[in-house]
Amino acid sequence: MAALSHRLLVDVHTHVYLPRYLSFLRARSAVPRVFTRTTPDGASVERLLILDAEPSGGRPMGPQYWDRALKLDFMKRHGIDISVVRLLRPACVPSSRLTLVAPRSSANPWLDFLSAPAAHELAHQLNDDLETYCSTSPALAGGPLKQLYGFGLLPLVPEVTTASLLDTVHQISALPHLKGVIMGSRGLGNGLDDDALEPVWAALEHAGLVVFLHPHYGVDGKEWGGKDNGHVLPLALGFPFETTIAVTRLILAGVLDRHPGLRVLLAHSGGALPQLSARLASCIAHDPVVAARLQHDARFYLGRLYFDGVAYGAEELAFVGDVVGRADTFAGSSASAAASRGAGLGQRRRGSRRMLFGTDHPFFPPLGETERWKSVVENLEAIEGVHGWDEADKDGVRGGNALALFGLSK
Amino acid sequence: MAALSHRLLVDVHTHVYLPRYLSFLRARSAVPRVFTRTTPDGASVERLLILDAEPSGGRPMGPQYWDRALKLDFMKRHGIDISVVRLLRPACVPSSRLTLVAPRSSANPWLDFLSAPAAHELAHQLNDDLETYCSTSPALAGGPLKQLYGFGLLPLVPEVTTASLLDTVHQISALPHLKGVIMGSRGLGNGLDDDALEPVWAALEHAGLVVFLHPHYGVDGKEWGGKDNGHVLPLALGFPFETTIAVTRLILAGVLDRHPGLRVLLAHSGGALPQLSARLASCIAHDPVVAARLQHDARFYLGRLYFDGVAYGAEELAFVGDVVGRADTFAGSSASAAASRGAGLGQRRRGSRRMLFGTDHPFFPPLGETERWKSVVENLEAIEGVHGWDEADKDGVRGGNALALFGLSK
Repeated sequence: MAALSHRLLVDVHTHVYLPRYLSFLRARSAVPRVFTRTTPDGASVERLLILDAEPSGGRPMGPQYWDRALKLDFMKRHGIDISVVRLLRPACVPSSRLTLVAPRSSANPWLDFLSAPAAHELAHQLNDDLETYCSTSPALAGGPLKQLYGFGLLPLVPEVTTASLLDTVHQISALPHLKGVIMGSRGLGNGLDDDALEPVWAALEHAGLVVFLHPHYGVDGKEWGGKDNGHVLPLALGFPFETTIAVTRLILAGVLDRHPGLRVLLAHSGGALPQLSARLASCIAHDPVVAARLQHDARFYLGRLYFDGVAYGAEELAFVGDVVGRADTFAGSSASAAASRGAGLGQRRRGSRRMLFGTDHPFFPPLGETERWKSVVENLEAIEGVHGWDEADKDGVRGGNALALFGLSK
Repeated sequence: MAALSHRLLVDVHTHVYLPRYLSFLRARSAVPRVFTRTTPDGASVERLLILDAEPSGGRPMGPQYWDRALKLDFMKRHGIDISVVRLLRPACVPSSRLTLVAPRSSANPWLDFLSAPAAHELAHQLNDDLETYCSTSPALAGGPLKQLYGFGLLPLVPEVTTASLLDTVHQISALPHLKGVIMGSRGLGNGLDDDALEPVWAALEHAGLVVFLHPHYGVDGKEWGGKDNGHVLPLALGFPFETTIAVTRLILAGVLDRHPGLRVLLAHSGGALPQLSARLASCIAHDPVVAARLQHDARFYLGRLYFDGVAYGAEELAFVGDVVGRADTFAGSSASAAASRGAGLGQRRRGSRRMLFGTDHPFFPPLGETERWKSVVENLEAIEGVHGWDEADKDGVRGGNALALFGLSK
């Protein structure tokens, strides 16, 4: 880790619940809401309630969700120089034993219980708050950079106007410490292949804002069966499946063809997309209608995307590097593409340039009292362990690629 | 391909609809059923109807689904020496443009519209038919082997008795050309983590029969959205997701702990399990209740499973080899497991021994008139292209591993 003393470690996947949003949830009497409960030993604990029917009475929330000092302490403990935080995600918390079917609301999770005007107003307020959260964070030693940057929030709710969305893109692009937007899988309620999002993609592309695609709902909870597996199945499988479906629908709708400059960062190393992109290409090649609609073989688009490194294994990261690095060989139509023939380690090094370290903080906290979090250590060791990446490649994944993607220069 | 003249090429993933099953479907007046329709130019075509509401009037079926001569011709054309066929799968056919939500019946698809006694009787008849189909197939030149072997069928329907299931396992194990059973993801209606399946796993383990786990339903069709993407999403994503969920639930229920000799072969290279097994391990490590239930880290179990090679890319196969080959380093509890550190190509070679070539015939037929099927060529080229596999490893995946798994000796 000595090399990190002069190379930056940047966390692109880390969550924050801003105080305004928490106050908002605390003031609500309907879900989603935050309420205080007194434990049997007299302590007050806050709990986040997402569903009316949650038999556990919601999941506990602590200051690690909103206290910036704790975020900075976490960063210091793990040698993280910069975090690019994303606003709130009232989703499954793995420490709860309750298997929840996520609420099936109609659009993105963060503001989707609001009317369009209220969502617009709150999004603007939260974006301003996040700018302050970042701009007042400590400066990184020896340069102009701050320790915190952020992804803003769009009022992605069903009745919103295009003007409201574009106005919010404009707001975010004018806030110097916000470098992108977070986005769930539902868009305005009809998914990311919704034609109504077309002007939003164009505006995000034009503004150079990164879209961080993050899951929230998983897939239908019936798939998990009746056994008590806690949150293991929705978190381990449902979240990556949701991301995979969302980005695949984005690709199939031609969004990446029409917006080649759009930069989309996928949570959890793209879910299952890396492993299924060749099968996807094969299915498209056997469907002339879909094939004719796309400019390129499906495998090509993986080279247009960015992937966080939240995958917990060296082989997993190596494989993402492989499929990203081979992508350019699949330019052009799917029907004429040759099989991938395994070009060796050169493509794995190329692929590393679109991969970025992340922690998923404050989720996956340690079970015991440990100085460093197992989940973070695993993701750092995974980068270190990738066969075929040299130190420059690893430094890129640990921080250099993020600096380049977000336009941060030392 | 010259090496194949003396090494065998074995297809472990290939489908057949036996005449008895077709007759049965033809005689039915309710779905699922097969009926004949006259085309505008006067030709008669058969169509398979799965849902009452199918607006396309079902999907076309041709003799490639049942005619053994066409199966043998397909094998000859692609240099396939032996096929281990599996009975029927009335699921999505990619040449149809209809996006179908697969029927949500309560158990496995093949016989689940029957009462338990009728399912028992038909399963026994079909198993006998399949034995005849295989035993009367041409002998492989120069040895005692036949060109066709098969996976039998269990009456996996909700009301079936354990005695009926065990009787069918016994029947199959006594039929010399049947080497295993096919199984969908639903078991008796409650998934593969159903305690009621416990005696079935024990009997299959004892009989040495291979369980070929194959998807049928995908995941909830709402996930695919409203755009017309044909069958691309349910086939490319839904099928692998279904397999991934099913085998993960099997692992979480401890079935592989209790039955270390049970041999399970996963369709489509295990779906997304290889890419998500480290995330799965992390989620389990953060859930003490689930972690305490399992003998090993989740990544360990991949070394207990078998994976077909229907993945359409060299990188994909290489990665499956990587995660299978590393599995033994994850013996023991998840909480104490170190991160995977990427042990290089040795583990990829080890992993190859649990991987087996397959075609998915008669699905993914060529769009145009071609001598060899693109889908088959891709899967052969993928094996050829795996970086780090030598000719012996590749020969193993092409056939040697299948001969060993099914106990076929030249």
